[in-house]
Amino acid sequence: MYTSDTICAISTPSGRGGIAVARVSGPDAIEIANRLWRGRALTEALTHTAHLGTVVDPATDAPLDQAVATVFRSPRSFTGENIVEIAVHGSTYIQQQLITLLCRAGARVAEPGEFTRRAFLNQRLDLAEAEAVADIIASSSRAAHRLAISQLQGHFSAHIDRLRNQLIDLAALLELELDFSEEDVEFADRSRLLALAESIRTTLRQLADTFHSGHAITQGIPVAIIGRPNAGKSSLLNALLHTDRAIVSDIPGTTRDTVEDTIDIDGITFRFIDTAGIHHTADPIEQMGIERALQRVSNASIIIWLTTPDEADLPALPATIAEHLSTHTHLILALNKADLAADAAAVLAQQAQSASAARHQIAISAKTGTGLDQLRQTIAQLATADLPADESMIVTNARHHQALMAAADALTALIDGMPTLTTDLLAFHLREAIDHMAAITGSITSDTILTTIFSRFCIGK
Amino acid sequence: MYTSDTICAISTPSGRGGIAVARVSGPDAIEIANRLWRGRALTEALTHTAHLGTVVDPATDAPLDQAVATVFRSPRSFTGENIVEIAVHGSTYIQQQLITLLCRAGARVAEPGEFTRRAFLNQRLDLAEAEAVADIIASSSRAAHRLAISQLQGHFSAHIDRLRNQLIDLAALLELELDFSEEDVEFADRSRLLALAESIRTTLRQLADTFHSGHAITQGIPVAIIGRPNAGKSSLLNALLHTDRAIVSDIPGTTRDTVEDTIDIDGITFRFIDTAGIHHTADPIEQMGIERALQRVSNASIIIWLTTPDEADLPALPATIAEHLSTHTHLILALNKADLAADAAAVLAQQAQSASAARHQIAISAKTGTGLDQLRQTIAQLATADLPADESMIVTNARHHQALMAAADALTALIDGMPTLTTDLLAFHLREAIDHMAAITGSITSDTILTTIFSRFCIGK
Repeated sequence: MYTSDTICAISTPSGRGGIAVARVSGPDAIEIANRLWRGRALTEALTHTAHLGTVVDPATDAPLDQAVATVFRSPRSFTGENIVEIAVHGSTYIQQQLITLLCRAGARVAEPGEFTRRAFLNQRLDLAEAEAVADIIASSSRAAHRLAISQLQGHFSAHIDRLRNQLIDLAALLELELDFSEEDVEFADRSRLLALAESIRTTLRQLADTFHSGHAITQGIPVAIIGRPNAGKSSLLNALLHTDRAIVSDIPGTTRDTVEDTIDIDGITFRFIDTAGIHHTADPIEQMGIERALQRVSNASIIIWLTTPDEADLPALPATIAEHLSTHTHLILALNKADLAADAAAVLAQQAQSASAARHQIAISAKTGTGLDQLRQTIAQLATADLPADESMIVTNARHHQALMAAADALTALIDGMPTLTTDLLAFHLREAIDHMAAITGSITSDTILTTIFSRFCIGK
Repeated sequence: MYTSDTICAISTPSGRGGIAVARVSGPDAIEIANRLWRGRALTEALTHTAHLGTVVDPATDAPLDQAVATVFRSPRSFTGENIVEIAVHGSTYIQQQLITLLCRAGARVAEPGEFTRRAFLNQRLDLAEAEAVADIIASSSRAAHRLAISQLQGHFSAHIDRLRNQLIDLAALLELELDFSEEDVEFADRSRLLALAESIRTTLRQLADTFHSGHAITQGIPVAIIGRPNAGKSSLLNALLHTDRAIVSDIPGTTRDTVEDTIDIDGITFRFIDTAGIHHTADPIEQMGIERALQRVSNASIIIWLTTPDEADLPALPATIAEHLSTHTHLILALNKADLAADAAAVLAQQAQSASAARHQIAISAKTGTGLDQLRQTIAQLATADLPADESMIVTNARHHQALMAAADALTALIDGMPTLTTDLLAFHLREAIDHMAAITGSITSDTILTTIFSRFCIGK
């Protein structure tokens, strides 16, 4: 146990509800909760048992609420410490008072993420798993949730640790050579070291490459709809919104955090980028703003180029967008108002010749709904096309992405330096790569990193 | 058990948080929860035990979340039925999915208040206690909370039942007379009946009288600040707000529902009435609006008449207000900007002569803070002055108030009719009084009443 004090917080969402749960964790959690408790003594309760009783102000014996207290004894708890969870009626007043009483009885208010931080420090979770807890709570779509759950299950950590252990074996041999440096022996087979470093570097880079899509899935995949004014951009957005919002909100009893202009398609959240400000202008200041908007569009994962039947020849794409069309950005040519065209297929084929970067062409009508299902399917497929089938191998966390890149760079220094560098420098680069990988699962870490990571948690977790 | 189906809902406040709790209640609660459960079988769990496991979609075995399930077996649960409480990570997505999976496994989404309704129907709570559950959840101040807790503890119900039982004994004797009506006997002593009916009627009316104050405490006690423009009404409100908001919001980890212009003083919520629209006008339409505003002011529990030192003679109070100054409405004369007066006490004494209905006079300065503590104390004392010391004898519920008045009216019909009415009519009025009292605790009730009562609950309670 790294700490000797006991923390408490309301762990359920803030506000009023049927019940609210305060969590108390620490060596004195059971004694502190028991000071407020009238009913069977919690100090005598077995682990994992729930008890009906009354929370009182011990100073006056005035009852605060009828409550159920559940006792989890160390080490069999989320944090590894003693935990008491007190479920009370969810009035804001009772929640405030309960925390006040717990603090008077000897606990202190937990910092954001402090319960999970203690779970990590008591080795109930590794760091990547602890970060997954925050991702799980933040996830609002099926796809984001699956990535976070798969990370919480530790497959990603296990994979990183396996790679790291292979490097550790070689590092040990390199370091052994240093002990015998005067005898000029080679314990570590250089060709095996080179092959392994190259193979692991490839794996690390592949993992790092998943970050663009993985991050997009957790944050909402950026989609831009471009096209000349009156092509029907807003109508298309509304048509997509209308049909899908209904699906996500038909379960009563839960509230969905709605963000403007995000749409769930097939369980994936898409974030639509406002392209309204993009137009021709001579004003240099305004031009700068437009350049920034174009930059955002070109960084979108998917660009929908919305046209109408009366556009016989499409203009060239703005250079900023054309330059950035990459494997990460998919371009879809969508002919809107197709119902107004005599031969929509012919118009689309004609337009597709001018827009050769668009690998997908769809005739739609935002008004009648024609082609919208196909458009949705295409969007959903493109969003997941770049991802590995094994979801636990998708990086969603910027910190992990940086660590993977840094580890790959250290391996590059090792590989490039193999013919010329001394053993101690090779060992240094290898150790550097190992340390960066260790930072992901938290085998090596610092207080600063931990504070940064856990400060993004909500209170009570 | 009155129902055979199993219900479920998220019982914690809506939104995102560390953990969220789904409650499942009904004969099949344990079996249904177990269908989603990977871990030790919940069907074999003892009552009041908590279990770590994984919630999965049984159709695909895909994990939804790591969770803790707590089993409460009938009849030892809140509803009296089997209950499983499943604590998951508080993402909105997981909450939605959990309810969806529970419904697919055989539960249905609970209606608002349905858990508490089942607790009532299974005789775990009487109706007044069940209503107290909703009041507890809604209470946002110490005073409102204490009233609700005291009602949940059943003192009020027990008091009503005691009174009712005395009447029932007499009703039984009256009804016995009806069985022997041809023999002209009197089993029920008429003088004892009269004395008891009068004594109980007095008690019922005293209880009903507490409703004005009791209701005000739960809803926020209405306070009006009147006075001519620039007397400093807004400054006073801000000064009162500023010093007290700080006190209620210094506990992190909980969010307070803030409503504009309500202030907590000494744990009591005061609701300030906007009097900005009250001024002289010749326009008859505008005059109607002003009359309505004056009506609201005259119905306030406390009126603060804010004056300044340069007002040598105060105008007469508007008739609407003066007419309504009653025992329920207290008038406080507050001389603002007292620091600008050469002799504030003399000014105040002079003004008090014109405002003779004001039993309290205080010299204050909203700017320097002089006298504000005294004003706050006076407000808090006046708010509770009319209340009985025994908080369980305060009526806060409009339905109870109506039932008490109706029971008292039935007793009046009995008392007034005693000299002339036949035994069967006396028995009718007595039975009517008894039935109205029974409706409070729910000994006699109807589906319509229950639906009305429980529809004001939140989902999940």
